[in-house]
Parts: sequence; structure tokens; C-alpha cells
Amino acid sequence: MSALLDTLRQIVGAPHVLTEGDLSAWEMDWRRRSHGKALAVVRPANTAEVAAVVRACAASGTSLIPQGGNTGLSVGSTPDTSGTQLVLSLQRMQTVRQLDHDNLTITVDAGCILQNVQQAADAAGLLFPLSLAAQGSCTIGGNLGTNAGGTQVVRYGNTRELCLGLEVVTPQGEIWDGLKGLRKDNTGYDLRDLFIGSEGTLGVITAATLKLFPQPAARLTAWAAVPSMAAAVRLLGLAHQQLGAGLTGFEVMGQFALSLVVRHMPQLRVPFADAADTPYCVLLENSDSESEAHARSRFEALLEMAFEDGCVSDAVVAESLAQAQGLWHIRESIPLAQAEEGLNIKHDISIAASRIPAFVEHADALLQQEIPGVRLVNFGHLGDGNLHYNVQAPVDGDAKAFLDTQEARVNHLVYEAVAQFGGSFSAEHGVGALKVDKLQKYQSPVALGMMRAIKQALDPQGIMNPGCILPRA
Amino acid sequence: MSALLDTLRQIVGAPHVLTEGDLSAWEMDWRRRSHGKALAVVRPANTAEVAAVVRACAASGTSLIPQGGNTGLSVGSTPDTSGTQLVLSLQRMQTVRQLDHDNLTITVDAGCILQNVQQAADAAGLLFPLSLAAQGSCTIGGNLGTNAGGTQVVRYGNTRELCLGLEVVTPQGEIWDGLKGLRKDNTGYDLRDLFIGSEGTLGVITAATLKLFPQPAARLTAWAAVPSMAAAVRLLGLAHQQLGAGLTGFEVMGQFALSLVVRHMPQLRVPFADAADTPYCVLLENSDSESEAHARSRFEALLEMAFEDGCVSDAVVAESLAQAQGLWHIRESIPLAQAEEGLNIKHDISIAASRIPAFVEHADALLQQEIPGVRLVNFGHLGDGNLHYNVQAPVDGDAKAFLDTQEARVNHLVYEAVAQFGGSFSAEHGVGALKVDKLQKYQSPVALGMMRAIKQALDPQGIMNPGCILPRA
Repeated sequence: MSALLDTLRQIVGAPHVLTEGDLSAWEMDWRRRSHGKALAVVRPANTAEVAAVVRACAASGTSLIPQGGNTGLSVGSTPDTSGTQLVLSLQRMQTVRQLDHDNLTITVDAGCILQNVQQAADAAGLLFPLSLAAQGSCTIGGNLGTNAGGTQVVRYGNTRELCLGLEVVTPQGEIWDGLKGLRKDNTGYDLRDLFIGSEGTLGVITAATLKLFPQPAARLTAWAAVPSMAAAVRLLGLAHQQLGAGLTGFEVMGQFALSLVVRHMPQLRVPFADAADTPYCVLLENSDSESEAHARSRFEALLEMAFEDGCVSDAVVAESLAQAQGLWHIRESIPLAQAEEGLNIKHDISIAASRIPAFVEHADALLQQEIPGVRLVNFGHLGDGNLHYNVQAPVDGDAKAFLDTQEARVNHLVYEAVAQFGGSFSAEHGVGALKVDKLQKYQSPVALGMMRAIKQALDPQGIMNPGCILPRA
Repeated sequence: MSALLDTLRQIVGAPHVLTEGDLSAWEMDWRRRSHGKALAVVRPANTAEVAAVVRACAASGTSLIPQGGNTGLSVGSTPDTSGTQLVLSLQRMQTVRQLDHDNLTITVDAGCILQNVQQAADAAGLLFPLSLAAQGSCTIGGNLGTNAGGTQVVRYGNTRELCLGLEVVTPQGEIWDGLKGLRKDNTGYDLRDLFIGSEGTLGVITAATLKLFPQPAARLTAWAAVPSMAAAVRLLGLAHQQLGAGLTGFEVMGQFALSLVVRHMPQLRVPFADAADTPYCVLLENSDSESEAHARSRFEALLEMAFEDGCVSDAVVAESLAQAQGLWHIRESIPLAQAEEGLNIKHDISIAASRIPAFVEHADALLQQEIPGVRLVNFGHLGDGNLHYNVQAPVDGDAKAFLDTQEARVNHLVYEAVAQFGGSFSAEHGVGALKVDKLQKYQSPVALGMMRAIKQALDPQGIMNPGCILPRA
């Protein structure tokens, strides 16, 4: 081991091989569910150094855990407790390599912070639309490794859809340069999409060429009270029809989720919080390539139609950017308000939009029946069929005890219901080490067989993030 | 072999195992470049029959060539001349399994003709946007196997981007049901995108769940004369900015390509055909979620801006649907006009839009220098950086002799130039058996190594379309 550490120090320089002091920023996951122990944290400066580090690990049979901002929610980027695994941190690789205005692409190192990529695009008058809560600290490499989603997927797709090419270091320490910024390229198997979402188990993503879009001339936000989840789905259909690709955000929030924001963030003004007949609210965003006036007239036409249909009972359209940001801030405050209320059991599920109303009715009733008084914090990206269907202890219940005794049971009830409705137990947060057993249970055995064969084919030594996605061989 | 044929007759019924008579519809490729000999053409009726056929082949070590409409341009769906390979035709599997209006998805058998899928969506008031010349006879399975492109990619993406889930029969004859219509699903490696574009070499796609979109309220078409390829790229940037996602088509056509339409289809009226200062024309389509009047006003704003910029010298906007169809018909007539003019050497290349002007200048000059009098039929989907950069014999030259003596040299010159400009030698037509050597030459060795490992992992017997994409093991 000390020979390996010496080699690593030669490759990246001694200051970038961390073995002493508090390494918890790299060893503990974001939600503090897992505290591992690394052999070392290695911070290469460029792709050649990454490749050399991987070759040294391959030669000594040492496992590697690629890590970006370490903001993942499924424990996919931290080491186990053995003290034998390296954390390979991409944090020092932050170069924006190229922005090609005419090709609408940007090529960046994997360690670039998402927000910095957004800002680089913005400075060129363009848009990089990936947008999610951790954007100030997560990295593009992590976004790609987990195929991150977020709030603009209804229009622009997941990270997968935003990527045109990758640079990857293989488990053998070779460099694959697949950074062509081409929108059409059918020259063999789609390796790009195989690495995207593979959570560092097949290689190390070191750079990417990403799609950019024109900045919309205006973005407007509306907040609508809807009488049911079925009405929210109907509103989604109308919004698709009326706004077309202008529909860039469609978030649903249960009234209980909003009541937690009212309780714990009293400075925020939540529209329709007192409306007794409003089980859900919807946040809509309309991006317009023409003008704010046009965006407003399209929103008004949509809402008029929705009132007539009955799928909206009340609505406000933000009058200013500050108001729009205020509405988004309410939506984004739900996880924090939930944390203030106490520990809870989180789910990141997706279901066909058409089946979400029936799913919610079924799951709500089931949980209430099995755990009387349980409280459901239901919100999420309805435009993508993605709900964060979280479960909070009954009022005055002991949240810690609730988690300890009920988490496995609640997960079982929710995931069985999701499977029954043809959904996914992990929509946008990935599998990590946290949900390996869920993948074994709910993914098709034929698919699992192919995944094992691919892992074995590309990483026969099993050194890349072992125990993530698939069980250790 | 006769035991295998008996087994196949038991599985699919004797009338669906074709061994006699003229089988050239299945044995010869679309462009009549390859005439193979099949052991039999097998036409299963459903996925279970496909799986049983594949198991019988695996047990006897017999190779299979999956085939849809057999309209591919790279010889990827026909047997070799050995008489030992089965053609597995999906033509009888034409069921539209489900259309989910609220989820904006349609699930279809792989043998469905593309045009029938478009019509099924249309009948439900929705849009399936994949659109290409062969749509009356190509199948969805073939579109997925080759990741087909076409004329709407600038807005809706390639077939890959339009697919949410697949059903696949593996080389072992197992059925993977991955047909969930989910827009977010991060549960392990992305097998879907691995099968898309794998041209039947990793398994048989038997069904797919595809994305649908709202029908636009209006579609308008414009035809613009541009003073250079650089101007065309500038117009593309303006169109992205002004029309946003309304830009659903952006085709470029060289004046020589259009002159062939004028010569061979004198009944068609080609705008600006006589303009001496118009080396290229551009066809633009604007789809609008509001109204035709709005689409027209947006087009006018764009064209006014383009005149001012100088990147457009003249333009017409179609006044009626018939006029719009007439303009598209001119564009779609180029390949036929080219065939009327005589045999030619075709290329399907892509390059970053920003580098296309320099590429075209370089390649045009190079070819003229190397083969004096050569004529360049340059047209394609500029919105995706995809050119059909075709090479026609000099006037009065013997086209057949030109092809025989010059094809390898012309391909070499064009593909070397494409590589020099960071492009792809196969944008939307795939590799097939035709371009296996090009893939070996121009794809990265690291990528090729991973592709071979994946092929070996999923199809260790090597029975799925051997010699397509990768050389036979």
C-alpha cells in the first residue's frame, strides 16, 4: 500500500494525496448515512493524471471511488469502511475547455461545478438548462454519472439528453476521447450512454461536450391550485398542447408539503395555503422565444382554458422576476421544511403520468391504513412523472424511532405499489450503494444478467466503485 | 439444418419459413449492392415466437439477421452468400399495443411501419415526429436498430431520443421487457441505448415505447437563398434564437443539387434556381403551438433580421399547405434527380455546424483538384450538422467507370477530410456490413476495444448479425 501511495504522490504531487486529518468531506455521504474510511483521497489535475492513477490502481488491484461534489443521495461516491479504497476526486479539474457558439456546445472538465457551467453558457448569451438543488456544489461528472434530472426535464431532458460526447478513463487506465460535438453519429455501440448513469462503476468520466440552447426571451412562472392529482395531470396535458416546448417546468406540491413550508418558513408567502379544497398546487414555467408579453398572453390563454375545464380552481402569474423566484423558492424549500419537521423516509419514484392519480390514491390509503396518522410529503416533477413521495412520522410521534422501526416496512409498501403501477424505484437519484438490494429485487433478471456481463466485460478486475449498482462479484 | 428448419416450422408455422422461390426482397439490400443467400426467411408472429426462434438458432449455432423493412443504406439487414444464415423478418409484428394520451407515449411492435405509427399518433391528435424518406416501408425496429435520423432531428432528436423503452430478445433467446413509459428511470446501466443503434448485433428489438408530442397548431415552411455556407450557419443561429423549439426543420441544398431537380423534374418549380449568386438554398420549417398567424409573424421577424444581417439574399414563405409540401418535395427529390443523372458516390457525414463552412470549402477544392470536373451534390440536415456530400462523375464521364475506378479514392479523400474536421463518417445511416472497415479505421481503438468486449459479453456465440458493425470474431 505504501508503494502505491508513493506512486500516486509521484503522479499527482504529494499535496494532492490526502491521508491525514479530517477527510469526512470525501468519506461521508451528503445525507450522512454512510461514513467510510479511504486509503487516501487522490486529486489529479488532468485526464492524463487520472489515467495514471487508474493504471497504478489496476496494477495493485486497488479499488477506486470516483467522486465529484459528493452531493449524491444514494451513497454512490464514498468509500466503504475497509480503508483499502481510494477516493478519486475530480474537484481540481474545473476547466471550461471550449464553448462553440455556432455549434451550441460547451466542453468542460468533469469537475466543473454545475452552476459554473450554467454561468459560462449565460455569459455567452446561451443556456445550459440542467438545474437542480445542489447546483452550487455538484459537478458535471457527478451529474453525468448519475444521469441527474431536476426541474427542467419536461423540456430539455435529463443529463443524458444534454450530453453529446464524453472523455472517459477506462478501468485499464486508457483514455477514450469521445468528445465530438456531433448531433448525429452512428459509428458503433453507444458507449456514451452506457457510461452516463453508470455511477463510476465502468470507468471515470473526465470531460463532456454538452448541448447549449438559445436563452429564452422571457420566462414566466405561474402557481395554480388544482382540485385533485387527476386535475394536475389534465393541466399538464393542456399545458403541453398550449405551450408546446415553452413548457419548461411543471412541479406538483401536496398541501401538506406546503403547510410545512408555512410552518417552518413563516416569512414565505405560500399562495392558496388556506384553501381547504386545494389538495395540490402546481408550479408552471413558460419560456418564450419571443417576448414577455407573448409569454403572458399564452399563459393567460392556458389558464382560461384550465378554469373552463375545471382542472384549475385558482391561479396567479408572477408579475416580476422577484415574484417568480419567490414561487420557485417555496417549491425548493420543501425538503428543508421537511427536515425541520423531523426525520422522514424519502422516495424518488417515477410512474407514467397517466397512472399517477391512481397510484397516489392507492399508496396514500395503503399507508394510512398500515400506519395510522402517517403524514405524506408528496411533491415533485409531475411533468416527468417523478414524485418525491416522502413519509413523515405521525404528529407527536418520535421521528427517530419511527425511522428505526418503520423505514423498511414503508419502503416495502411504497416500492411494491410503484412496481404494481409499472413505475421505477429510482427516478433521478440513481442506485448507489443504498439501493443495490432494491435493484436486485425490482429490475428484470434478464436485464440484471446483461448488466453483470457488461460490468465483467469492461471492468474484469472489479476495481471501479465495487458494490455500487451491482453487488460485489 | 433440416432439423432446425423443422423446429422453426413448428414455432412459426410452415408458411412462415420461406426457403423456395424468389427471396430477393429479403436477401438483397435496398441499394442492390449485396445479394445474399439465406438458409431461410423466418417470419414470427410475436415476441414469444422470436424468442423460440433465437433459442433454436443458439442451440444449433446458426446466425440470425434481424430485418425490418430492409430499407437500410449500409447493408446491415441482409444475409451473406453462405446460405447458412437465417433472415429473421419482423414484418408480421405490426400491432400498436397501446397509446397512452396522458403519458404522451405509444407502444408498438418492432415490425410496425413508421408511417403507420405516425398515423396512429395523428389519429389521437398527437405527433410522432420521426420523419424520413423511407417512412412508407421502413419499420420502427429498423429505425431503432440504426438510430435513424431524418428531417425533424433539429427539434426532436434522432430515434434514440424518441424512445423511452424497449422489449428485446437476447442472443440467448430470453425476453427483456423494458417497456416502461418512464421519462426518468435510473435503475442500472442504460441497456436501452446500447440496443438502439446496435443494428441487430446484440439482440432483436421486438417492441418499443416511444414519445409522442402535441400536434403543433401550425407548420410553416420557408425557402431562403443564402450567399454562402457560412451564411447558412449564421441563419441557423438566428433561427434557433428567434424560433426556439419552433425550429423543426433546417435543410441546406447546394445549387448544383437543385439544378439536377430542375433538369430531371421539370414540372417542379425550384425557387431562386436561376440566381447566379446563390450557391445554397435553405429550407426552414417553423412549428407553432399557437396559430398560423403567429408562426407567420415569427418567420417574418426572423427573415427581416436575416436580410439585415446579410445571411439571406432572398426568401419565400409558403402561403398554403400545398406550397409547403411542394417545397419539401423539391428537397426530397434530390436523391432521385441524382439517380437520374447517373450513378454517384454517397456519403452521410456529420461535422460540428461551426466547422461545416471550412470543411466544405476544403473538401470541394480538394476533390476538384484531384478529380477535375467532378460534380458535388451537397445537401442535408444542416440543423444537425449532417450533410449528404455526394460525388457525381464529371459531365459526359462514364458514371459506371467512374464508380469502379474512383469510389475508394473519393471515399478516402472525403473521410480523411471529415476526420480532420472532427466529424463522423456515418451520421444517420449506420455502419452495417458496408462500413466495417471505415469503423476500424476511424473509430478510436479504445472505443473499439470496449465494443468488442460488449459484443463478446452479450453474444458470446457471435450469432447475431455477424460481420455487421464489427468484423467477425
